[in-house]
Amino acid sequence: MRAAVFRNGDLVVDEIEQPKPKDGQVLVKTLACGICGSDLHAFHHAPALVEMSVRSGAPFTMDLKKDIVFGHEFCAEILDHGPGTTGKLKAGTRVCSIPLAFSNNTAQTVGYSNDLPGGFAEQMVLNEALLLEVPNGLSTEQAALTEPMAVGWHAVMKANLTSEDIPLVIGCGPVGLAVIAGLKIKGVHPIIAADFSPARRKLAEAMGADIVLDPKVDDPYARWNVEATPEGYDPTNLLAVLGVGPGLRPGVIFECVGVPGVVQRIFEGAPRGARIVVVGVCMEVDKVEPFFAISKELNVQFVLAYTPEEFALTLHHLAEGMIDGSHVITGRVGVSDVKQAFSDLASPERHAKILVEPWH
Amino acid sequence: MRAAVFRNGDLVVDEIEQPKPKDGQVLVKTLACGICGSDLHAFHHAPALVEMSVRSGAPFTMDLKKDIVFGHEFCAEILDHGPGTTGKLKAGTRVCSIPLAFSNNTAQTVGYSNDLPGGFAEQMVLNEALLLEVPNGLSTEQAALTEPMAVGWHAVMKANLTSEDIPLVIGCGPVGLAVIAGLKIKGVHPIIAADFSPARRKLAEAMGADIVLDPKVDDPYARWNVEATPEGYDPTNLLAVLGVGPGLRPGVIFECVGVPGVVQRIFEGAPRGARIVVVGVCMEVDKVEPFFAISKELNVQFVLAYTPEEFALTLHHLAEGMIDGSHVITGRVGVSDVKQAFSDLASPERHAKILVEPWH
Repeated sequence: MRAAVFRNGDLVVDEIEQPKPKDGQVLVKTLACGICGSDLHAFHHAPALVEMSVRSGAPFTMDLKKDIVFGHEFCAEILDHGPGTTGKLKAGTRVCSIPLAFSNNTAQTVGYSNDLPGGFAEQMVLNEALLLEVPNGLSTEQAALTEPMAVGWHAVMKANLTSEDIPLVIGCGPVGLAVIAGLKIKGVHPIIAADFSPARRKLAEAMGADIVLDPKVDDPYARWNVEATPEGYDPTNLLAVLGVGPGLRPGVIFECVGVPGVVQRIFEGAPRGARIVVVGVCMEVDKVEPFFAISKELNVQFVLAYTPEEFALTLHHLAEGMIDGSHVITGRVGVSDVKQAFSDLASPERHAKILVEPWH
Repeated sequence: MRAAVFRNGDLVVDEIEQPKPKDGQVLVKTLACGICGSDLHAFHHAPALVEMSVRSGAPFTMDLKKDIVFGHEFCAEILDHGPGTTGKLKAGTRVCSIPLAFSNNTAQTVGYSNDLPGGFAEQMVLNEALLLEVPNGLSTEQAALTEPMAVGWHAVMKANLTSEDIPLVIGCGPVGLAVIAGLKIKGVHPIIAADFSPARRKLAEAMGADIVLDPKVDDPYARWNVEATPEGYDPTNLLAVLGVGPGLRPGVIFECVGVPGVVQRIFEGAPRGARIVVVGVCMEVDKVEPFFAISKELNVQFVLAYTPEEFALTLHHLAEGMIDGSHVITGRVGVSDVKQAFSDLASPERHAKILVEPWH
């Protein structure tokens, strides 16, 4: 079968062996698979990613001397059932799955594995027990957004929001947009979002942000402060200093950039008592001045991925039209153009999410 | 009056002007005042502290060209009432107070102020509204521990502990010991504590830690794992990997060291989903690898000080014998020996808390 293969640090198109379903697994045809920021990072910094994964116990343990097929944001169609399956979902059924597959009591991440091809190949094997049928009427490409949108929903869930909170989304790439979608469903307003890119700011608005700022022009924390201040609040009043009496609405800041320095800038800008949810995946050493966080008693919740339940609920959100992912999809490529798409994604003005359609 | 004065970067003994109570304030005689790690930091790194405070909005805004009298962990005796006071507590009453004083609608930190002498002087002014009477029978020196012990109690409160949690205290200086005291009152067991110093480990045991480790010999995280693992738990089981079924008891790690590198070591050692409470005050730039925290979904709660209610409750804890602070007090000095005491505190084998008794 054809696939975009990560080989010797490059992305090449090649014919590779068709995967064979093991016990409890099914063979699927990849219909669409999004390119994730983590894929870009793996492409550009594979040795560092593997080294970090080994040290931190994370699940990206690949042998870079062997082939890897990326792609973990997929919608697929069942082709065939392997041994030990129930066949509950028939061949031809469109499915999504968390990108995890297991056999012989070991789990691997689909898309970051030497054994399991990811969604930038024509076919994959998935575990039957993890399959979710795509509800009738939901397009394949929107179904392929289940994975990235689940990341946003998980972050929103981990924030333990109340209706008093005012969320601030720093960075409106695919991760920030997914967080905005989750916040809209959660019904916490106003949703303030900030990004340097005009195109990303437009997408943030389309996804449901109430206030969208260019940080070069408007300080997001100053705007947060305006929104968070109740009528008649006097910050110089000693009761306010002592925390007695009506206070500011709490701030919850979603870090959706994932590069060094962003957390420190949030430490500097964040209001006292703010919760920070780190959704961006920074793979490098980062420098912070903890005293900023200490003097404001900040809370930092690092998050990764989602639970199987959150993933299933996100597919439901998409199917019910509670998330309209069509804004996010800015390009579609076949297997041969994956490498070009990786490079095109460097421009936030042109692209947010590019889908790979291996059969086109 | 006599005081140990921070002047031109040095600690000198001098006669300084007696403070005058303003509206709502009382004049008190300092009976005992502990030396805090923050005082040591201010002594050695005053310009950096002030610069950091200005940038972060923290309350240590001192003019280093003018005199400062440190000391914010005090027990005092009322001498005289200023204008606009009620006189509810008579002269001669022993009192504690949070180290905050205000007049003309501005608040200052007692002990880090150019206007208000701290507890390393014979007299101070305090706000009547913040005074707490020392209950009969509680010794003056134990009452002087209210402030540092309140820091530990606040950290324990901010951890939102349940009886399922297993706390791990990293560092058993005064801050770690106060956290252990708070954990003992909270009744969460086993309390695991780690420190390189044998003397500190003995104190940790005396304060109520159940398991006390030398990190050079025993890995605290490995020990946590043993304690947290329920019978019959199989970490290689896929249900465990997916988080289904009975899991490990949650880990709550108290960072009580406050120097660069400790948080990263906690990121590396912490179990998945652990909460980290940063009680140690690191005033420098710190380096972390966020991916460790991301891949384990760690939560980091930075804390500072305490609420007035927590401070009052801590005085009650001491008065009721729920905290026996006598172990912690390892020295007593007069005003003339404050500088020597600052230097003696560098040795964890010899000292934990030294009290300054300005009248001795």
